Amino acid sequence: MFSIEIPPVSFAIREQLQFKIDSKTKPFGALGKIEKLALQLGSIQNTLNPVLKKPAIVVFAGDHGIVAEGVSAYPREVTYQMVMNFLAGGAAINVFSRQHGIEVLVVDAGVAFDFPPHPHLLQAKVAKGTRNYSNIPAMTSGQCEFALKKGATIVSELHEKGCNVVGFGEMGIGNSSSAAILMSLFCRLPLEDCVGRGTGLDDIGLERKKKVLKQAITTNRVDGSPLEILSTFGGFEMVMMCGAFLQAAALQMVILVDGFIASASLLAASNLAPEVLGYCVFSHLSDETGHRTLLKLLQADPLLNLDLRLGEGTGIAIAYPLLKSAVDFVVEMASFQSAGVSEKNT
Amino acid sequence: MFSIEIPPVSFAIREQLQFKIDSKTKPFGALGKIEKLALQLGSIQNTLNPVLKKPAIVVFAGDHGIVAEGVSAYPREVTYQMVMNFLAGGAAINVFSRQHGIEVLVVDAGVAFDFPPHPHLLQAKVAKGTRNYSNIPAMTSGQCEFALKKGATIVSELHEKGCNVVGFGEMGIGNSSSAAILMSLFCRLPLEDCVGRGTGLDDIGLERKKKVLKQAITTNRVDGSPLEILSTFGGFEMVMMCGAFLQAAALQMVILVDGFIASASLLAASNLAPEVLGYCVFSHLSDETGHRTLLKLLQADPLLNLDLRLGEGTGIAIAYPLLKSAVDFVVEMASFQSAGVSEKNT
Repeated sequence: MFSIEIPPVSFAIREQLQFKIDSKTKPFGALGKIEKLALQLGSIQNTLNPVLKKPAIVVFAGDHGIVAEGVSAYPREVTYQMVMNFLAGGAAINVFSRQHGIEVLVVDAGVAFDFPPHPHLLQAKVAKGTRNYSNIPAMTSGQCEFALKKGATIVSELHEKGCNVVGFGEMGIGNSSSAAILMSLFCRLPLEDCVGRGTGLDDIGLERKKKVLKQAITTNRVDGSPLEILSTFGGFEMVMMCGAFLQAAALQMVILVDGFIASASLLAASNLAPEVLGYCVFSHLSDETGHRTLLKLLQADPLLNLDLRLGEGTGIAIAYPLLKSAVDFVVEMASFQSAGVSEKNT
Repeated sequence: MFSIEIPPVSFAIREQLQFKIDSKTKPFGALGKIEKLALQLGSIQNTLNPVLKKPAIVVFAGDHGIVAEGVSAYPREVTYQMVMNFLAGGAAINVFSRQHGIEVLVVDAGVAFDFPPHPHLLQAKVAKGTRNYSNIPAMTSGQCEFALKKGATIVSELHEKGCNVVGFGEMGIGNSSSAAILMSLFCRLPLEDCVGRGTGLDDIGLERKKKVLKQAITTNRVDGSPLEILSTFGGFEMVMMCGAFLQAAALQMVILVDGFIASASLLAASNLAPEVLGYCVFSHLSDETGHRTLLKLLQADPLLNLDLRLGEGTGIAIAYPLLKSAVDFVVEMASFQSAGVSEKNT
């Protein structure tokens, strides 16, 4: 049985941090969310001088048996083709990570393809894609546990190398279907409120997707335990990400959360250990249906709203400089006293 | 008489740019505002491969006679003290500009203080603060014209040094009063919809500010010409910024727009030459009352919404990496063809 201990984020330093923030040469609260972010980062690291070390994005990739039912606008092959694109450095996640000096690690969590060895590819294949959950659970409980543990191990290894800020991306044609079902079951919401167009289904495709997923929930009755929901409807890349979220929080790392799929994986993680949420910075509000509601339920206030809906961790990479801004603000900026600036009239 | 020619942004390259954007390995439109930004930057530069050269932020500083009426939460001295803070590198604009390799140039447009010479301070003082416009116009038409021309010259010099992307910040205790009046007069909106708390007025201070500004509009009747509105109620830093906006557009530079004060200066500029708006990237929606309405009237879709209300150009500096992301996306990212990725099912 997979289990993990996560210490809650410490509030010991909070008051001192707030005082430091308020002493900076700016009107009270005038840097808005940057100030809140600085407070969170300092609290996570329990310091007045937070620092971001060796930022990394782990992109988990996996295939989905449900794709046979026509739930995606793109063919299954795109999963492995995009992994090859990541490895060649040509995808959006590569471009934005290069821009900000973020290391990208690609993990084959369960792609239906045999990859040649590559220095940036971590082989962690559970199987060549999940089973088609229109009939049977997507994976066995053993596979689910293996994926959770593997995700945790990957994060531990990054942490050992000195990384203290990590984000998780995904690639898996069909995974917005899994995410929608997870959201519906964990949040007890009608499936209709959770299913979106994914990579760009048209109206007919969207209706088919809803019908297929509704049928799948009826066929596979689950008792509602987080692990059973995950193994019945999850993808290998999502379960591995779930384990990665939990381990990153257990190691008290700063965690960046991407869009709809990543948030659904985090939802599963938070059902296993709610303390994980204290370590999470929500990078953006995705354009995918359901993400707004999901973020609200997670009580998350995302940094960006750029109508992104690409996945891969792109929202994380684009939002990363805001974390750096928050750190630089609280560490480098002058105080009223140090700069000799008059304070507010009373 | 100040006048300037601005060529409209070319649409010649637009179709080719859109085709290039749509051929990238991502679902159609999945990078949302980053794609729109790439389209705008490529159009401004009339190229499929836009590039950002020597980014600079010019911070214009000036004092306001109206401050004697108690319209600000901070004393007038803070203007010069903050200029000293900019020159010492300790202010928020320094921190965020350093983070992104943006050059900061501080301009004394009209501060009530004698600054010692400093390599990063440009002396362009029109006078030691504007006059108190509760009784008489803030400046003469000659001063207004001088400030407009000076702003244009400063931008021309940056452009000559190879800069092709520029943003404008400001520092001037009392300048949210000028901005509110400009917005009210240019947009024909009730003053109440345009006046906010600035650096943090309490309820009593806000009421006083509204009363003072209402009285000022009644006392100084203006015929509605942009230059008369500007010279009657503007600040030297705002007028100089207005000239800078116009010249940057005339030179077909990419222009970054900060918060409420900068948007009010741009509003004045767009009343002199509406083509300026095509060159503007709106960095953020400020928390200051009136900015949302003002952006809507300018048909602007801001990149960020982080509850910032600091000025100095901080919103620009924080948003700058998004411009870099847009450029890197359109220049570096692989296409479906180059990466061998299958396209959408038809």
